[in-house]
Amino acid sequence: MVPHLITALTGPINELEQRMLDAMPAIERWFRLEWMEHTPAFYSAVDIRNSGFKLVPVDTSLFPAGWSSLTKDMLPLAVQAAQAAIEKICPEARNLLIVPGAQTDNSFYLSNLLQLQRIFENAGLNVRFGSLDPAVKSPREFKLHSGEKLVVEPLQRTRNRLGLKHFDPCTILLNNDLSSGVPGILEDLHEQYLLPPLHAGWSMRRKSNHHKAYEEVAKRFGKLLGIDPWLINPLHARVTDVAIGKPSGLEQLKAEVDALLGRVRRKYKEYGIAEKPFVAIKPNNGADVLPGGGGVLIVRDGADLEALARKPRGAAGKAAPGAKAPALATDLILREGVLTNERVHDAVAEPVVYMLDRYVVGGFYRIHADRTSDESTNAPGSRYVPLAFAESHHLPQPGQQAGASAPNRFYMYGVIARLAMLAASYEMEATNPEAEVYE
Amino acid sequence: MVPHLITALTGPINELEQRMLDAMPAIERWFRLEWMEHTPAFYSAVDIRNSGFKLVPVDTSLFPAGWSSLTKDMLPLAVQAAQAAIEKICPEARNLLIVPGAQTDNSFYLSNLLQLQRIFENAGLNVRFGSLDPAVKSPREFKLHSGEKLVVEPLQRTRNRLGLKHFDPCTILLNNDLSSGVPGILEDLHEQYLLPPLHAGWSMRRKSNHHKAYEEVAKRFGKLLGIDPWLINPLHARVTDVAIGKPSGLEQLKAEVDALLGRVRRKYKEYGIAEKPFVAIKPNNGADVLPGGGGVLIVRDGADLEALARKPRGAAGKAAPGAKAPALATDLILREGVLTNERVHDAVAEPVVYMLDRYVVGGFYRIHADRTSDESTNAPGSRYVPLAFAESHHLPQPGQQAGASAPNRFYMYGVIARLAMLAASYEMEATNPEAEVYE
Repeated sequence: MVPHLITALTGPINELEQRMLDAMPAIERWFRLEWMEHTPAFYSAVDIRNSGFKLVPVDTSLFPAGWSSLTKDMLPLAVQAAQAAIEKICPEARNLLIVPGAQTDNSFYLSNLLQLQRIFENAGLNVRFGSLDPAVKSPREFKLHSGEKLVVEPLQRTRNRLGLKHFDPCTILLNNDLSSGVPGILEDLHEQYLLPPLHAGWSMRRKSNHHKAYEEVAKRFGKLLGIDPWLINPLHARVTDVAIGKPSGLEQLKAEVDALLGRVRRKYKEYGIAEKPFVAIKPNNGADVLPGGGGVLIVRDGADLEALARKPRGAAGKAAPGAKAPALATDLILREGVLTNERVHDAVAEPVVYMLDRYVVGGFYRIHADRTSDESTNAPGSRYVPLAFAESHHLPQPGQQAGASAPNRFYMYGVIARLAMLAASYEMEATNPEAEVYE
Repeated sequence: MVPHLITALTGPINELEQRMLDAMPAIERWFRLEWMEHTPAFYSAVDIRNSGFKLVPVDTSLFPAGWSSLTKDMLPLAVQAAQAAIEKICPEARNLLIVPGAQTDNSFYLSNLLQLQRIFENAGLNVRFGSLDPAVKSPREFKLHSGEKLVVEPLQRTRNRLGLKHFDPCTILLNNDLSSGVPGILEDLHEQYLLPPLHAGWSMRRKSNHHKAYEEVAKRFGKLLGIDPWLINPLHARVTDVAIGKPSGLEQLKAEVDALLGRVRRKYKEYGIAEKPFVAIKPNNGADVLPGGGGVLIVRDGADLEALARKPRGAAGKAAPGAKAPALATDLILREGVLTNERVHDAVAEPVVYMLDRYVVGGFYRIHADRTSDESTNAPGSRYVPLAFAESHHLPQPGQQAGASAPNRFYMYGVIARLAMLAASYEMEATNPEAEVYE
């Protein structure tokens, strides 16, 4: 079930959206069957873009860090989902250890941690935080702007288990994307549940694997709905070993971009879409940055690629002090650009859907006043607007006369988000270094 | 997790309530462990009374019929819980058949059915209604005051399965308490899930079994919390084969009432409670009525018992046309009366907590302006006030300084309701006619 939240986009429901609303019971059953075969991510967040003719996920985070941006109304849903998740993993658990990221100087991130603590305490667990930072040698208290406090403690590793002083957890929840590598203290923990698994970390994860998995999910879901999977799946290509510094490398990339733009143009023609296609370029490894700096480059034609040849402008945002500088990407993902039609107060807005286990528990808009509709809003300077429950409170009611209730546009976003999360589940299975292979 | 709803009672949290809030993670874990051993009721509703010094369940319905009294905000919680419930029972299910009660002339009851349909459709099932009434020989459409429609169809029974024309359900959900007996069409359905089971129906269920099971649950929970179980469990006694028509029968009952009042008085003395104790008398069989009419008699002293010797005033409420007249009870439950301190607009109010599977999904107040605080509010003329999410939206936050957030009083009600539901689960196990007995 997807809560009925107010989306900024209030235009008429398009054909794709209507088809999803009409197929709701079939879609929900389809997911139910998928979860019999696959394990949902413990928690996740998916960025969605709705261009009016396409509805696609553009980012699937397995270490979501915006829990405090959900409205308080969402908490019961999150807690209920957390209870269901824990029950499956470790029903006898008393303790949950959360391993935060390095951004503990950031009040916004700290309130995310507090929110996670609240959710899991309400689900019936004692929750404490253990730091990967070797400099943390005794409990350290952080104070938030709100006056609330949070204590981060030094991790204690024994041969087989990880914990804190007088705190032995059943499950260890990573809220740290491990982009600078997997610390040894997290390795070989076979007695405890470490979630998400280490190969979900950005030092090991590759966007190309996710795209491949999502393509498969989109095909199967397209079949269920009787739609062209392109409507929910952006075209993409992977370019490896490209030496962008050299003119030959740039030429190679340009040829790949042109090929992808050509494929998009053919699709636009097929559907009578008058927009000008564009391509987003990202490093395949989420921990890397593009030559020229940043995590995404929008390319409308070859000239835009010149940015890659420029000197890096200091990498993506500011790095945490002492953090390893990100590597420059030579393994790239080219993805069909998808506009967003969503606006909040005239600013470009991207819906972000939060999930816990298989359940959509809420969402918010990531907005950036300075950005145009074709760029990523996940950049320094972005703001977050929580989504509230829709006033009409009507759930989609199939069979009712049109207009009897406002459609739940957020439902579709929840479907796309769950497809991306399911793809992450496929991806984790396919990339699991400990998987047994049956041939 | 229990949603944070606004309760009418705004007085300070008493010691018992504070103890529950403080023990929240331990309580939630305790329930989690219980559900590893016992199967929660598929759905249930529990009436709660909060006297200030006691917090007790007074009625545990396994066929809740007030779903439309929950606010729309609660629907996502209900749907999420329904998904979890279905997944355990019949994950591949496409269809759910609901068997309604006989009150289809009642718009309030019809909207309850529509709400159930909405919840399960959003959980991914096709939902249709099948009538036990042999007079329903073709689909019958009912129109609600709201303009919405609902179709009830004739049931079709084959040797092993129950369904409708072109509709073969995996699960059959009874919303009919079967107080006038189990119809043959529902018997011997071994290929499908029939929920709740037939022995949950009021023709077979006995309140004394529920009291016994709840007593056990209250003892175990009291141990966890370190409290006297009496604080959550009303004293009670069963009186069988009492011939109330004869003076000797009335004398026998009077002696039992006096004995129970004496036990309550001793407890009041122990706790320094200045209230005057009273006793509620109910038929052990929910389908029966008391001599004198009605389903409950409040007794403060022996003279109040004379009401039982009077002529029945036409049984409890109005019977449905054609329905079997309820039998007069000779098997009685005497229960320590518990006042309610809750008021809504000066009227006596009783919180009712709704659950789906193990999850509290919402609640409302049953209020009755004409009643005093010691009588049941479940009587003709009662009104329903849905409980809204609390304004402050704060979940209980242990360790926070007092006053930092309003306490979630509804949390305690959700705990008591779940204890009663757990007792129903014990009760169903103990009374299961098909249970295999290991000795």
